[in-house]
Amino acid sequence: MSLWGGAFLQPSDDDLKALNDSLRFDKRMYRQDIDGSIAYAQAIRDAGILDAKEAITLIQGLKQVLQEIESGSFFFVAGDEDIHTAVERRLTEIVGAVGGKLHTGRSRNDQVATDFRLWVMKTIETLNDLLKTTQEALIEQAEQHTETLMAGYTHLQPAQPITVAHWLMSYFWMLQRDRERLRDARKRTSFSPLGSGALAGTPLAIDRVKLANNLGFTHVSMNSLDAVSDRDFVAETLFTLAMTGVHLSRFAEDVIIFSNPNFGYIRLNDRYSTGSSLMPQKRNADPMELARGKAGRLIGNLTGLLATLKGLPTSYNKDLQEDKEALFDSVDTLSALLPVLIAVIKTLTFNTERLTASLTQDMLATDLADYLVNKGLPFREAHHIVGRVVRYASDNGLEMSQLPLEFLSDQSALFTEDVRQVFDFKQSVAKRATLGGTAPSAVNQQIETAKETLQNT
Amino acid sequence: MSLWGGAFLQPSDDDLKALNDSLRFDKRMYRQDIDGSIAYAQAIRDAGILDAKEAITLIQGLKQVLQEIESGSFFFVAGDEDIHTAVERRLTEIVGAVGGKLHTGRSRNDQVATDFRLWVMKTIETLNDLLKTTQEALIEQAEQHTETLMAGYTHLQPAQPITVAHWLMSYFWMLQRDRERLRDARKRTSFSPLGSGALAGTPLAIDRVKLANNLGFTHVSMNSLDAVSDRDFVAETLFTLAMTGVHLSRFAEDVIIFSNPNFGYIRLNDRYSTGSSLMPQKRNADPMELARGKAGRLIGNLTGLLATLKGLPTSYNKDLQEDKEALFDSVDTLSALLPVLIAVIKTLTFNTERLTASLTQDMLATDLADYLVNKGLPFREAHHIVGRVVRYASDNGLEMSQLPLEFLSDQSALFTEDVRQVFDFKQSVAKRATLGGTAPSAVNQQIETAKETLQNT
Amino acid sequence: MSLWGGAFLQPSDDDLKALNDSLRFDKRMYRQDIDGSIAYAQAIRDAGILDAKEAITLIQGLKQVLQEIESGSFFFVAGDEDIHTAVERRLTEIVGAVGGKLHTGRSRNDQVATDFRLWVMKTIETLNDLLKTTQEALIEQAEQHTETLMAGYTHLQPAQPITVAHWLMSYFWMLQRDRERLRDARKRTSFSPLGSGALAGTPLAIDRVKLANNLGFTHVSMNSLDAVSDRDFVAETLFTLAMTGVHLSRFAEDVIIFSNPNFGYIRLNDRYSTGSSLMPQKRNADPMELARGKAGRLIGNLTGLLATLKGLPTSYNKDLQEDKEALFDSVDTLSALLPVLIAVIKTLTFNTERLTASLTQDMLATDLADYLVNKGLPFREAHHIVGRVVRYASDNGLEMSQLPLEFLSDQSALFTEDVRQVFDFKQSVAKRATLGGTAPSAVNQQIETAKETLQNT
Amino acid sequence: MSLWGGAFLQPSDDDLKALNDSLRFDKRMYRQDIDGSIAYAQAIRDAGILDAKEAITLIQGLKQVLQEIESGSFFFVAGDEDIHTAVERRLTEIVGAVGGKLHTGRSRNDQVATDFRLWVMKTIETLNDLLKTTQEALIEQAEQHTETLMAGYTHLQPAQPITVAHWLMSYFWMLQRDRERLRDARKRTSFSPLGSGALAGTPLAIDRVKLANNLGFTHVSMNSLDAVSDRDFVAETLFTLAMTGVHLSRFAEDVIIFSNPNFGYIRLNDRYSTGSSLMPQKRNADPMELARGKAGRLIGNLTGLLATLKGLPTSYNKDLQEDKEALFDSVDTLSALLPVLIAVIKTLTFNTERLTASLTQDMLATDLADYLVNKGLPFREAHHIVGRVVRYASDNGLEMSQLPLEFLSDQSALFTEDVRQVFDFKQSVAKRATLGGTAPSAVNQQIETAKETLQNT
Repeated sequence: MSLWGGAFLQPSDDDLKALNDSLRFDKRMYRQDIDGSIAYAQAIRDAGILDAKEAITLIQGLKQVLQEIESGSFFFVAGDEDIHTAVERRLTEIVGAVGGKLHTGRSRNDQVATDFRLWVMKTIETLNDLLKTTQEALIEQAEQHTETLMAGYTHLQPAQPITVAHWLMSYFWMLQRDRERLRDARKRTSFSPLGSGALAGTPLAIDRVKLANNLGFTHVSMNSLDAVSDRDFVAETLFTLAMTGVHLSRFAEDVIIFSNPNFGYIRLNDRYSTGSSLMPQKRNADPMELARGKAGRLIGNLTGLLATLKGLPTSYNKDLQEDKEALFDSVDTLSALLPVLIAVIKTLTFNTERLTASLTQDMLATDLADYLVNKGLPFREAHHIVGRVVRYASDNGLEMSQLPLEFLSDQSALFTEDVRQVFDFKQSVAKRATLGGTAPSAVNQQIETAKETLQNT
Repeated sequence: MSLWGGAFLQPSDDDLKALNDSLRFDKRMYRQDIDGSIAYAQAIRDAGILDAKEAITLIQGLKQVLQEIESGSFFFVAGDEDIHTAVERRLTEIVGAVGGKLHTGRSRNDQVATDFRLWVMKTIETLNDLLKTTQEALIEQAEQHTETLMAGYTHLQPAQPITVAHWLMSYFWMLQRDRERLRDARKRTSFSPLGSGALAGTPLAIDRVKLANNLGFTHVSMNSLDAVSDRDFVAETLFTLAMTGVHLSRFAEDVIIFSNPNFGYIRLNDRYSTGSSLMPQKRNADPMELARGKAGRLIGNLTGLLATLKGLPTSYNKDLQEDKEALFDSVDTLSALLPVLIAVIKTLTFNTERLTASLTQDMLATDLADYLVNKGLPFREAHHIVGRVVRYASDNGLEMSQLPLEFLSDQSALFTEDVRQVFDFKQSVAKRATLGGTAPSAVNQQIETAKETLQNT
Repeated sequence: MSLWGGAFLQPSDDDLKALNDSLRFDKRMYRQDIDGSIAYAQAIRDAGILDAKEAITLIQGLKQVLQEIESGSFFFVAGDEDIHTAVERRLTEIVGAVGGKLHTGRSRNDQVATDFRLWVMKTIETLNDLLKTTQEALIEQAEQHTETLMAGYTHLQPAQPITVAHWLMSYFWMLQRDRERLRDARKRTSFSPLGSGALAGTPLAIDRVKLANNLGFTHVSMNSLDAVSDRDFVAETLFTLAMTGVHLSRFAEDVIIFSNPNFGYIRLNDRYSTGSSLMPQKRNADPMELARGKAGRLIGNLTGLLATLKGLPTSYNKDLQEDKEALFDSVDTLSALLPVLIAVIKTLTFNTERLTASLTQDMLATDLADYLVNKGLPFREAHHIVGRVVRYASDNGLEMSQLPLEFLSDQSALFTEDVRQVFDFKQSVAKRATLGGTAPSAVNQQIETAKETLQNT
Repeated sequence: MSLWGGAFLQPSDDDLKALNDSLRFDKRMYRQDIDGSIAYAQAIRDAGILDAKEAITLIQGLKQVLQEIESGSFFFVAGDEDIHTAVERRLTEIVGAVGGKLHTGRSRNDQVATDFRLWVMKTIETLNDLLKTTQEALIEQAEQHTETLMAGYTHLQPAQPITVAHWLMSYFWMLQRDRERLRDARKRTSFSPLGSGALAGTPLAIDRVKLANNLGFTHVSMNSLDAVSDRDFVAETLFTLAMTGVHLSRFAEDVIIFSNPNFGYIRLNDRYSTGSSLMPQKRNADPMELARGKAGRLIGNLTGLLATLKGLPTSYNKDLQEDKEALFDSVDTLSALLPVLIAVIKTLTFNTERLTASLTQDMLATDLADYLVNKGLPFREAHHIVGRVVRYASDNGLEMSQLPLEFLSDQSALFTEDVRQVFDFKQSVAKRATLGGTAPSAVNQQIETAKETLQNT
């Protein structure tokens, strides 16, 4: 019989039970539920609801339940509609009627919200660590390639030469923002709803601040109606994870394209490529395709929860039970994805021959314009002149460096013999040495800053 | 060792396996996979790839695999990365090397697409039946209440009296459109991709049309690149289910509001109400709140898949593996929800006392305007006059029928003694007898049409 | 003063007006509004509400309003909160008090729904034509390239040789499904809500079927509550357009990748490429990037509307006013995009040299496996053997055709001199001649079917 | 001729222009564009690219362009494809060829990103102020109603008595979190990309930190590839606004339900209610319905951008042009909505008679259980006993306070005469005096904390 059944004559319908019951997915919060109950037992002992002995009995009972669950000797029974009733049911089996006192002044509404927040706070730490390890892997690879040149792209068209390290580090900063967003989301998760009752607050003289601190919360909620229905922390975490998914999808897209044989810049380790049942020569970047594809799912989980929350009436509504599966799925998705991506990054190899071959002189067009600008020509004019030069070279199947000086000086008298120095990829890169630029010197500085950032965040 | 491992020296990484493997969710397509393989064995026998004996061996082996799965004697082993490899692995254990011939000219790409389409076609039938039963429940209730009056709302403000049956039947037509959309989605699912190979078509002389028909498809795909990557049928089905979810969420919202005690129009059966752990008097419409909330999840599943599909390069990409979990989740959601909703509808009771009390004379304002219009006043003028009458009545705490005739005739000389007849809710309803109107006569006709529609669709 | 102001003492707030007023975007439905009013005037004349002269006056007045709008001599005035009030206001200025009769028995609720459905029905035709033209452009290009070979990809890894026409035609079928979805959406749009009143139906003896047919609707709505709040047709159209956007985004991705210089398969016409302000050599496929990016917006418009509809109470709610801007935006997006894409497709040029160079012998691995299969080896074994061959060739920097026969026959005794015939791309393609395959013969048949399809749909 | 046209022989297609051009929507960033250019002119002067006189000329020219735009004397011309080219075109008209120097080392990519970030930073301030004013309006109303009682709901079922102020304040804290999220989003927006060039960094010796500070940025971006393509700040702002929209939709839902006549708790001021064209008595809460409905649009804008960003290749792609309209629309939506909501809140009136009538004794069931708990009964037992009492009272049409003591003491011997004191709503509320509870004392404390929070954030 369910805990709330007192007022009903008929048992609830089986189909309804199947629809209602959340044990299937919320059982993973068992530890948070027990931690919350232990802290709550202490709080209502302090408030005079339990005497010292009752409190000890309950706490020892709860610890036994925890031990049973973790050792695998705990069995769910029919009627355990969620992890909260399961724990309380077993507790009462162990400690007897005093188990019925634990719920005094507490509602499923504030209990569930507390458990879930604790779970999210812990999970954010875990994801933060995974992301940090991903960042470290990027730095590790970048340090090997601060001088390796490659074509830099905009619009997937070769634009200017860059360093491989610069490309790798661009993803470092995306993940850094993701971690900062996670930290901010955690900050707003760390508000204890415990002591809000079902909706109106508790009539017990509970010290909510002490109770919150005992559980690791930094703040307490200030309004009980809000406390039992606030799922902003779920939506915000889902958003952060969707954003992370988008970043990983962009990295994945790059790796997929760069490991296409026409590029051939990158080779995934055999362990992270898969073949085809029909085409044995294929080296499919499956994990990267999954990384790209799963961004969709992360976006969908966010969208779904926001739509669920939209238009809900005041305070707790059962619709809110939809909060967990979406988040669990997003967390599981990234928890499965990131270890693979870390391994992929660590074992990426770069084909320097192909990278070098990717550099073509038209990628120095900007440098050629800069040459004219340095000689005093306004940039816009330089730009138009170089545009004509590029087209001429292209139309005649020549490299720009093969164009006769006479042709160039016909275009602008500012072109003189020293123009030859422009056609050097290494120098082109080295020039972009300002903060955030692609020059090895700037990239080394970038990597230093990245390392400091990792230490401090 | 995985089936595609021939070209690789190192085993794939465990984390990657966990990420890649789809057995966890695609095993529910075991029957479609086996059906597809049986039909394919026949097709390649007809094409001369298998001799008659080999074909029989394979088909009998496949039937044994099916029997093992359905009887629970089938065990998955490490290396079964998806249902397709699991079935083929077991088949080869049973029939020996000839099992390796089944895959001739077939790719995982066309195999998976075939299995999934078959599964979707079957599932659409199941959902169609559930929706039809929901519609029947609505009709059943409506037939009890073709003459029961209630307040009709727009903007959740009482507007005009309607019949309860009319309200119930409004949901019938929403579900009817959903079923028609499902039927259209099924029509576009019923294209067989089998015989498309990995991407370029099959070199075997397979009769694709016969093969398709054997499997229950009505059409064959016309382009192999499209065939292996077309997931429109998934997105379209997800859209249809999201739309259904939206309709159910609207019904849920009505039921939740109408069963609030301030309304009290509706009482959910005890079996479909739940209490509160702290407030035993509550009669929460939990299944309706879940119905409302789960619309979000259905929307999220659709959004997620569309985002996954967006920007994919030509032909098959591993991202497409993300198609199944979203659809399985939407299907499971509605499969869990609809039986409960059907039971809720069948056991709904209406509180006629409260429904009658919901009818207030200001809901006859339109009828009063119609009265003036019938006497020749342009509608806009009638409207303004009645507006003043309503406000006067409201300001003076009077029902409109209590206003002295002198007052009314001061507003318009057209008001005469016969205005008293306007203040009759039953007559107000009876007047709206045009097709689709709320009059009992029109609603009876509507129900008849609904029944015919059910028989024909 | 607004038309509904009679019951209010204070004018509505300016900010509210700005929020409420929909004239800004709904004015584009002026023709549908006037058409609807003309038909409605005829219907209420037939129902005896208007005499023949009044009806003529109203209809002539409405035609004058239309003429004024189309000639640019119509001016909106303060108080025109939407196109419906603007038209009615001007009508009344022209025809006097009889203008106030037009609204008899009609509500803004059924009027707006009618206008919007008419607009959607017309717009679907327009989009259908644009999509058809896009399909024709694909066929036109495909016909030039039924024998041009290129690498076919899965996972963006070269897999098997295909024909360019086959690649182009894969998009034909996606758009075909989109058009069929549009047709189905139109079918469900073609239900006239006119005569549903505000929510409860009309008390007038209107022949709703005749009225519907006069306006071009094929059906009438069967339930007035549903009729005034059904926005399925908007959501379904938005879904269809989002799906189209996804298809175009895939085509765009291909074109962007294929026009990257490392591929160089495709060259966009100068008119449809853009340069860079800093890098004059760039040939950015801007329209394709926009096509890819705008798929997001189309998905967002769909998601947004579904979230808006979720959980709405019975019948009309003002939330429904949010239906139009989303659809207008999706329609405008595709209306701007498709003409550019059509031009892009028509002017695409293919670099046959680069396409030929894209064909590498490892793409014949499947053919090599087929060779062994044809000699009786089960496919799975053939697959493993060829896997070893591919790796050996790759490790030794050799083409497969350069491998000595001794090496091959060491792998399998089935390899004999005739294996040389396998290494022919043209033959590889020609073999895939089954329906939907990439062989020129099959592609020609595909194109024929496509042309017939265009004629019939 | 467009600025990048140098390399092209043919003019760009008109349709393409229409598709590409962003002037239509990006012109609202004119001030940020000019501010950015002024600061950039100073930076390249400091870097020696401009001499002092040239810098003054450019800056004065830019100020004149600003003045022309703000005074309405600026005219866009054909070829002004975005605000950046329009400003530069006009600048060059004013200052001559030196205008062509402004773009030295700057790309459209870093320029656009800079302008948009500046615009977002400013806009966040504006929205923050609007939200703060909304919070102040809530406090203002709450202070009037710290002792006004009403039914508190969970599941839209009456649960426990609460104070009106407590209900109002629940929305204060939601908006507070929204403002904190905005602040965090602004923090991550405040990174200057200027000096990143097109993708690889600038070759000029620009002091990027000084340049950033001059523009009001607190940080500079650390990687140029990331800098030109990072749109996290847009997505994060869109998420924050969607979350705000969800909160407003919940408030809207409450107000819509509470102003339904069956509730009658709330009356919207006439200025913020609208009538119906057919039903003059209606008092539709249109602005609240729009608030509820527009949450969908805000969710859609977020979803759309995330889908657009998903899977983009490295660095800048034209797809990113899709970032602005979504954000502009979300900002405009809230900018139109919030002033109306503020006015609605300020002018809300509460019907204390109806609020009092909403309190029914079954809402004291929890208090009755607490009564037994205080006498030593475990909560779970108390709960079951009270459940039976509630059902008995309900079945017999009695208030709980009307039940004879004998009946109660039959249920539990702990019920004695003093049970009568339980049936007092005021006392029930007053008991919930813990932090965050609904008691007037706790609510007063809550309001004080809220005021302090407003001062500090």
